[in-house]
Amino acid sequence: MEREQFFEDYELGAARQTLARTITEADIVFHAGHSGDFFPHHMDAEWCKTQPFGARVAHGTMTFAIGIGLTATQINPRAFTYGYERLRFPNPVYAGDTIRTTVTIGALDDDPKRPAHGRVTEVCETTNQDGKTVMYCEHILLAERKEAAQ
Amino acid sequence: MEREQFFEDYELGAARQTLARTITEADIVFHAGHSGDFFPHHMDAEWCKTQPFGARVAHGTMTFAIGIGLTATQINPRAFTYGYERLRFPNPVYAGDTIRTTVTIGALDDDPKRPAHGRVTEVCETTNQDGKTVMYCEHILLAERKEAAQ
Amino acid sequence: MEREQFFEDYELGAARQTLARTITEADIVFHAGHSGDFFPHHMDAEWCKTQPFGARVAHGTMTFAIGIGLTATQINPRAFTYGYERLRFPNPVYAGDTIRTTVTIGALDDDPKRPAHGRVTEVCETTNQDGKTVMYCEHILLAERKEAAQ
Amino acid sequence: MEREQFFEDYELGAARQTLARTITEADIVFHAGHSGDFFPHHMDAEWCKTQPFGARVAHGTMTFAIGIGLTATQINPRAFTYGYERLRFPNPVYAGDTIRTTVTIGALDDDPKRPAHGRVTEVCETTNQDGKTVMYCEHILLAERKEAAQ
Amino acid sequence: MEREQFFEDYELGAARQTLARTITEADIVFHAGHSGDFFPHHMDAEWCKTQPFGARVAHGTMTFAIGIGLTATQINPRAFTYGYERLRFPNPVYAGDTIRTTVTIGALDDDPKRPAHGRVTEVCETTNQDGKTVMYCEHILLAERKEAAQ
Amino acid sequence: MEREQFFEDYELGAARQTLARTITEADIVFHAGHSGDFFPHHMDAEWCKTQPFGARVAHGTMTFAIGIGLTATQINPRAFTYGYERLRFPNPVYAGDTIRTTVTIGALDDDPKRPAHGRVTEVCETTNQDGKTVMYCEHILLAERKEAAQ
Repeated sequence: MEREQFFEDYELGAARQTLARTITEADIVFHAGHSGDFFPHHMDAEWCKTQPFGARVAHGTMTFAIGIGLTATQINPRAFTYGYERLRFPNPVYAGDTIRTTVTIGALDDDPKRPAHGRVTEVCETTNQDGKTVMYCEHILLAERKEAAQ
Repeated sequence: MEREQFFEDYELGAARQTLARTITEADIVFHAGHSGDFFPHHMDAEWCKTQPFGARVAHGTMTFAIGIGLTATQINPRAFTYGYERLRFPNPVYAGDTIRTTVTIGALDDDPKRPAHGRVTEVCETTNQDGKTVMYCEHILLAERKEAAQ
Repeated sequence: MEREQFFEDYELGAARQTLARTITEADIVFHAGHSGDFFPHHMDAEWCKTQPFGARVAHGTMTFAIGIGLTATQINPRAFTYGYERLRFPNPVYAGDTIRTTVTIGALDDDPKRPAHGRVTEVCETTNQDGKTVMYCEHILLAERKEAAQ
Repeated sequence: MEREQFFEDYELGAARQTLARTITEADIVFHAGHSGDFFPHHMDAEWCKTQPFGARVAHGTMTFAIGIGLTATQINPRAFTYGYERLRFPNPVYAGDTIRTTVTIGALDDDPKRPAHGRVTEVCETTNQDGKTVMYCEHILLAERKEAAQ
Repeated sequence: MEREQFFEDYELGAARQTLARTITEADIVFHAGHSGDFFPHHMDAEWCKTQPFGARVAHGTMTFAIGIGLTATQINPRAFTYGYERLRFPNPVYAGDTIRTTVTIGALDDDPKRPAHGRVTEVCETTNQDGKTVMYCEHILLAERKEAAQ
Repeated sequence: MEREQFFEDYELGAARQTLARTITEADIVFHAGHSGDFFPHHMDAEWCKTQPFGARVAHGTMTFAIGIGLTATQINPRAFTYGYERLRFPNPVYAGDTIRTTVTIGALDDDPKRPAHGRVTEVCETTNQDGKTVMYCEHILLAERKEAAQ
């Protein structure tokens, strides 16, 4: 569960895939109540029938929270989140869809301001049962350098 | 609740502030269960006491979901979300903190690929009761141009 | 659990008292998400400090739902709810308060439009740990008459 | 979101309509757990099949909480809830129904005991996707009089 | 609700049956979030289709929690739980199944270490709408002896 | 996350320890609503003050669900749950306690009825922040024998 990884231990292109999870109507209802966003896109089945997307869709914030939550299986005590870039939702998530996330090490960069750390870019791509991308983002980690830790 | 705004109706620098909401231990527990992220940073009070941050902190995905959820009071049928940029969590959120979000129109750009739309950048900044920023991001909307709608 | 009672079986002045339940911050957060009411009276601890009531208060709709929910221990297959009258919230409910409901048969009336039924008025009074009334209402039931059932 | 209205600002017959919301099986399960009411009318699909209503129905307390919650979009700092009258549930709500509430100013009365306030009666009517009324009640507000505020 | 029963008041073979409750997809999603168990057996509809059981199944811990929870209608102040034996899940529970529990007094034994108490074995059997057993366990209570209480 | 283990791969005495999790008031409220058990031991803070245990305690079914849920990090496709034995709750769990589970292989037995499987006994012991045992049980698995799989 805990897996110590210094900046030098990350390997460009290495990828891992999470378990999958079926998104349910209950998740959408729960997320509306949790976030306070009751927009008709998520909550009003009758109105959605009249729209191009045709049915209630998951909140982007939920697809992000669950898509990223699926990756939370390994704790690295040598790294912490700096932020996320380019968060996109190319396709909608509907109740009944089953999603999983692939995390790929997309870049390994120096951090000019923090010489003791390196910058790891985890490309997170969440796909549904048809292989369509429903969430894309770049998770930026700062990982301790081995030399700095000594 | 619905407020129709074309690209031309957005005003650079215009700002609105949401209601505030106190984040509770219950929210953190819910979010762990909703996202599946049970990392000790959010769930293990004993371990957190031994860390620099000192107490359980909200998940970044939750600060994002609630920080953005607070803004969900006006539906604009002429715009839709393109994505989010530069999502950051400069300070932690603890149970008991009260947060609100300020949305400022930060940029209004042409979209080279979509001439019928303009690109609106909403700068979202969520602050706590001490005025510290706990979430920052740029919400990119694509808004229909009035001329194109005619 | 099921207790069959015809109109004739109700006794004016008969009273029963429910178990007690401590209302928690989690209940208030949950109710906001369930009802969609995120008003600062329930959700913004900082603002509440500046108000006469001093702290976040339970939603009236929650005090009603839980106050009545506490009475849901006996099913009478011979009666059904007609409605509620005079719903009041004389004192606020705060997280940490412990409430229970007393149900008293307050009136037994004919129902001019439904000769096969009688009208039972259950006076429901929910009190907190200091004996203060936090919810009052009159629950109107229509109960089958024994003679009509024969 | 905040809209200051004195008693004199309310207009008899003025009406507003809320967004709509689809009630789900998840809502019914949540409400049972929240209220503690696990009666078979709401929870036992097999038994419900043998009854005239045919399927699990929403709790009245839930239809009230959500029906009123839908109206919680405008905060009037000059008014507060006095209570509710004539709460009725003329038709059942099933999972899958989409409901919305219309609020109409039904009466504007003096309050003999509180000369600085007037009594506003908001008639709340919640309807489903077929236009059938599923909840009716009269919400009584006490609103400050402009003259008294001066 | 409270029903005082000394050891001598329990009768071998006496049985009571609870109300029934339909298990929903929402319950399974809640339980995953509550317990932290997001195994694909409960959460991944696509994978389950490829397995002999064919669809997402309830967690055993949930069938236990709800199966026992259904029995929580009578509080006996003279008895307390010692533990559970032989907990089994002979058949799966799917969303849509309706379950109820039968509690039978299966044994009444002396407790060698606690002469003031007797040992009551409540056999708990939870069945679905087809009469199949989905949970079996033996709940061991220690009940005060009448003679000891005098 | 998936780790294939045949019966022959289990080692007597091998132990693993889970992450820890702080149990909150929200968990207790949630479990009451999920299980339907609203007994005053869990829900009535005022009454609990008058009892030897002094404060609301977690439901045994919740301590079991979370204690076992904490272990759900490794899926073994070669084994399945047969049941649980000797489930005990030697000490209460209060809101604010932090618990974790240690799983030890306590026995490896033949299964007379299933020659292709062996019987693995996982001793599960959940302890709080003071090292006190709050849950004990023996989880019985049936694991495929390597020879049988060939």
